[in-house]
Amino acid sequence: MKQHATFYHAGCPVCVDAEQSLAASLDPARFDVEIVHLGESPGRLGEAEQAGVKSVPAIVLGGSVYHINHGADLSALK
Amino acid sequence: MKQHATFYHAGCPVCVDAEQSLAASLDPARFDVEIVHLGESPGRLGEAEQAGVKSVPAIVLGGSVYHINHGADLSALK
Repeated sequence: MKQHATFYHAGCPVCVDAEQSLAASLDPARFDVEIVHLGESPGRLGEAEQAGVKSVPAIVLGGSVYHINHGADLSALK
Repeated sequence: MKQHATFYHAGCPVCVDAEQSLAASLDPARFDVEIVHLGESPGRLGEAEQAGVKSVPAIVLGGSVYHINHGADLSALK
């Protein structure tokens, strides 16, 4: 069974680059990558916060959060 | 041809977790991932700095640097 990975972003240039380079590079045989734009889907901010996301872009994988560079703090998206 | 990706770390817990979760998750069909422990290979600090690495863990992919969370500043490894 594939592992679920969620990539949270907000459409910023840092986010788009991380999405195209890193999120798109995960092994498709092992991961099912969901891309969530928190600017367009603010209803998912709570879930991202609960997972430990502090800033975007970030990827949640196997219960851990990996903040990749820094585009925007989550608080800026509320 | 596979793309080369370099994952720089320093053996810290944050680094080891990022290596096992993220660096190991890249698609092996598309990437040839090299793992560099800068504590054990200080001779590669210059190359990492030139690539734009400021802290570890970080992954250099397609000419861009992705700093993942924060384990240690590069200056702490000199």
